[in-house]
Amino acid sequence: MGVGLVQMSCSASRDANLEKAVARIGDAAAAGAQVVCLQELFTGHYPCQSEDHRQFDAAEAVPGPTTEALARAASEHGVVVVGSLFERRAAGLFHNTAVVLDADGALAGVYRKMHIPDDPGYYEKFYFTPGDARPGFGSVATRFGRVGVCVCWDQWFPEAARLTALSGAEIIFYPTAIGWLPDEREAFGHSQHDAWETMMRSHAIANGVFVAATNRVGHEGPVGDGAPRGVDFWGASFIADPNGRVLARADHEAEETLVVECDLASIETVRTHWPFLRDRRVDAYGDLTRRYVDAPRFDERLS
Amino acid sequence: MGVGLVQMSCSASRDANLEKAVARIGDAAAAGAQVVCLQELFTGHYPCQSEDHRQFDAAEAVPGPTTEALARAASEHGVVVVGSLFERRAAGLFHNTAVVLDADGALAGVYRKMHIPDDPGYYEKFYFTPGDARPGFGSVATRFGRVGVCVCWDQWFPEAARLTALSGAEIIFYPTAIGWLPDEREAFGHSQHDAWETMMRSHAIANGVFVAATNRVGHEGPVGDGAPRGVDFWGASFIADPNGRVLARADHEAEETLVVECDLASIETVRTHWPFLRDRRVDAYGDLTRRYVDAPRFDERLS
Repeated sequence: MGVGLVQMSCSASRDANLEKAVARIGDAAAAGAQVVCLQELFTGHYPCQSEDHRQFDAAEAVPGPTTEALARAASEHGVVVVGSLFERRAAGLFHNTAVVLDADGALAGVYRKMHIPDDPGYYEKFYFTPGDARPGFGSVATRFGRVGVCVCWDQWFPEAARLTALSGAEIIFYPTAIGWLPDEREAFGHSQHDAWETMMRSHAIANGVFVAATNRVGHEGPVGDGAPRGVDFWGASFIADPNGRVLARADHEAEETLVVECDLASIETVRTHWPFLRDRRVDAYGDLTRRYVDAPRFDERLS
Repeated sequence: MGVGLVQMSCSASRDANLEKAVARIGDAAAAGAQVVCLQELFTGHYPCQSEDHRQFDAAEAVPGPTTEALARAASEHGVVVVGSLFERRAAGLFHNTAVVLDADGALAGVYRKMHIPDDPGYYEKFYFTPGDARPGFGSVATRFGRVGVCVCWDQWFPEAARLTALSGAEIIFYPTAIGWLPDEREAFGHSQHDAWETMMRSHAIANGVFVAATNRVGHEGPVGDGAPRGVDFWGASFIADPNGRVLARADHEAEETLVVECDLASIETVRTHWPFLRDRRVDAYGDLTRRYVDAPRFDERLS
């Protein structure tokens, strides 16, 4: 599978962003990509730096104009496209949604972000209702392989990656919009980026799958008080193999389109040499559906 | 919490290994450690390079002579000790067991390894029955903080770390015995070690806890055909903070006793700034108790 990741900066113009993304899908296809992933909410500035009702005007239906544009690009180039958009499902009901367009342009899958963050400058709980599909995590067969998608904040939750892998995903894509607050960048920037990449590499290792993250790049804002100096989106889109090795990593500052060949057959080798799926203790995982497990000893039956 | 990790090589002499471990507990205490973790099965050579019934003779009861020796060391130095031993629970019923001795020498907790590996040179399924306590994962209050323990192969399973953290653990210890097969070391050694450390760092990040691994060091074997040139145990014991930053890491080749001060109060700050526990989708994690989830789409309800 040739994997393409389109790391962009975004302007306020939906048309310009969409045009840029579509052009880069073509570039990636020309460079050998078969599955191309765009970044989270690529049609505009990141909309959640403040809580502003006017931002809802940017939302659209799925399927709708953006999925149709991506479908045309997919079928024109014969590539699978993973896109991300601000979905209006009904009046007052919005999602942070990813879509998978198969290489013939068919809408193969719709994933509504399950884990929604809310932090100063990332006020997503104001905008997005968490996904409610059952199952919420999964994957879809495409012309070039079985594709799972999670979105941004999902990347911090091993449960999301595990459930996506258990559904048969060979690669998990993470469209993402994460950056540094300029005031924190010097003290915490390296550690924050490293933790972010480490988590997704760990999903690759734990599950024996490829993992690819496409992140936004460039400075945006400030908008409102949450991030008083705006956000430096940190780019660094990357793809990791099933051993967690980073095969390619984009720049922290510049736009970049990565294209990497991923040998899906290696999953078989990795999973039989480090056979974690063989040994999961499914009989002992029931408490993962609890919020907290008020301080049990690990040997309550013995004590 | 002052955390001490005792990374040793082991001889065939149980008495010599136990004497060395007890001496190093004293060294760690003198250097400021309050909780000291020994490596997996520290009283002997790693017993699972081959399937040999004679190895069962090394197993012992819990409580028993090793826990009693560790309890004396704990109370003498006023430190918590996390130990590991080959437990004989009944005729034909053995476990790979970790114990927590509180700082007064009391046996505070017994953890029986839940995930059991089986690979050439690591034939643990022949020796060890998987732990069957309910809950299988948890933690125990000690004089210096709430301690969780998992063992070696458990480190590859995010479920184990999550359940341990949900029980209130402030630090998760991993007594470990992992190494390189000499024939693979040049080609895969770096990647294997990096994946191992990455997984445990990810547990620290995902759960906002400290994580500490104590690994064996030195060459052992060969014993039998599974690892025809024996095993180079790779040391590299380490401790990571709740952001996944490695605070200290021991050598790959040499014995070493690490002592690191861990600020448990930082857990509060990390967990409120990256509030992953707030946002877990416990309503959508039910399938984690399934072995595999035969290829669902993520939008079955929509399709």
